Amino acid sequence: MFEQLGLIGCGLMGGSFALALKRAGLVKRVVGYSKSPSTTERARQMGVIDVEAPSALLAVSGADIVLLAVPVAATEATLKAIRHLVTGNMLIMDVGSTKRDVVDAARRVLRDHVGSFVPCHPITGKEVSGVEHADPDLYAGRQVILTPIERTQVAQLKRASDLWEALGSKVVQMSPESHDAAFAAVSHLPHLIAFALVNSIATQPAGEDFLSLAGPGFRDFTRIAAADPKIWRDILLANRHELVEQANLFQRSLIDMLKQLEQEGGGEALEQMIDHASQTRAHWRMGQKK
Amino acid sequence: MFEQLGLIGCGLMGGSFALALKRAGLVKRVVGYSKSPSTTERARQMGVIDVEAPSALLAVSGADIVLLAVPVAATEATLKAIRHLVTGNMLIMDVGSTKRDVVDAARRVLRDHVGSFVPCHPITGKEVSGVEHADPDLYAGRQVILTPIERTQVAQLKRASDLWEALGSKVVQMSPESHDAAFAAVSHLPHLIAFALVNSIATQPAGEDFLSLAGPGFRDFTRIAAADPKIWRDILLANRHELVEQANLFQRSLIDMLKQLEQEGGGEALEQMIDHASQTRAHWRMGQKK
Repeated sequence: MFEQLGLIGCGLMGGSFALALKRAGLVKRVVGYSKSPSTTERARQMGVIDVEAPSALLAVSGADIVLLAVPVAATEATLKAIRHLVTGNMLIMDVGSTKRDVVDAARRVLRDHVGSFVPCHPITGKEVSGVEHADPDLYAGRQVILTPIERTQVAQLKRASDLWEALGSKVVQMSPESHDAAFAAVSHLPHLIAFALVNSIATQPAGEDFLSLAGPGFRDFTRIAAADPKIWRDILLANRHELVEQANLFQRSLIDMLKQLEQEGGGEALEQMIDHASQTRAHWRMGQKK
Repeated sequence: MFEQLGLIGCGLMGGSFALALKRAGLVKRVVGYSKSPSTTERARQMGVIDVEAPSALLAVSGADIVLLAVPVAATEATLKAIRHLVTGNMLIMDVGSTKRDVVDAARRVLRDHVGSFVPCHPITGKEVSGVEHADPDLYAGRQVILTPIERTQVAQLKRASDLWEALGSKVVQMSPESHDAAFAAVSHLPHLIAFALVNSIATQPAGEDFLSLAGPGFRDFTRIAAADPKIWRDILLANRHELVEQANLFQRSLIDMLKQLEQEGGGEALEQMIDHASQTRAHWRMGQKK
């Protein structure tokens, strides 16, 4: 049970966390801050937060738990803004989609208090953003990856882990490096591809007609292309090295298929490739090891 | 109202059509044939068809409406098998995902009776196939593209159009060429990309671990990768020229984004590209013109 959550960033992720914590009876009071005052006000009106803080620093004042729910590129500036009130007993977490840049920022800024910081990445989201879509069930049944570093305090790691489990999440631990490699492959690259495909169609002369004919396959395939541009620019930039590597592997895989498509008699090899993908995907279950 | 439907191919698409026609009271009797006798038997046990035909030709005997619901590569052989019983009064339709190859086959095989053939492509489907997933609602509310050729009889085109509308579908007409260009972009290329991405991840040393971490974005993005390998091999091959052209445009679009990602100061251009895709996708509605 926590006394006071300092919530920095009252959008979809932060707002949903506050609602989930409140519903579970795990926090007495939520003090929130957002860069945009209208968001903070909205969050208070909706009951997502109890008190509006005029700055990130004041949101942290008196908190025993702090959640950073800001775009990953804003992590370092946010940590700088709050570091004077960070204490060794305070549990600080983030929800960023990349982890190497986040732990680097935490090391640089928090220094002796970096042990209080537990880097988190909940595998969840919606194609819409903003506090108006906050949902106390956003984290239930979903994986939350914790990427502790060597200086993370064992006690804080356990508090973070217990808290996510109390919200119904499944906690997984790995290094920031493994995390970023994995998510370049299964999340950042799919987003990049979805953006590139939508642009590739929309910029053709008959693009609008083409799009008007698209069906449910296209709908699901491109759902992630509607993601927030600033947030995704930051994620793609923060993880660019792993992402470029994954994009190269993907392009090779695509070119292999195109070769069989263009080559006389390539049908059998093409079918084998499709079959491999189809079997893999058909047996895949979200959040489960094979 | 039709007396007898000759259904060739009793899988998901064909079975759903028969169920929809029966439920709407638009057909008295369904005679079905599938390449696999166990499928035909299953379809009869499920009430999808009333009578099992031992051959495609016998399924057509006595029918006033015929639906070909076979993989596109089997269209020509199927038309050859039935042509001796095709009459000028019979409405013949298909449900293939490519149309140029289908109308070419119909021209070659049906000759003087090609006017009875109305090429159709219903924009619907499931990630599972087989008669056991047949669903009378599969076509309701979905677009059905009709691609008549110069010799298609106006009366047959109207019968086909009225029939699909009676099943709740929205009918759209265009040329086979326009159809194939559009679906290369919005369906065949997304499938090819989804297959290539799943293979690219699964064949990496840490691929299984990566996949176990993937979330709802990946789930939706790769849903189409679980598609039937034989059916999709045929579709991709049948439309390979348009598909390769669309793949080239996509690769250019992807490389443009990767360039901005790797280039110092490319963040702004990258954000603009993401923003364009995000706006386009956010305003897109299935089956609607902007």
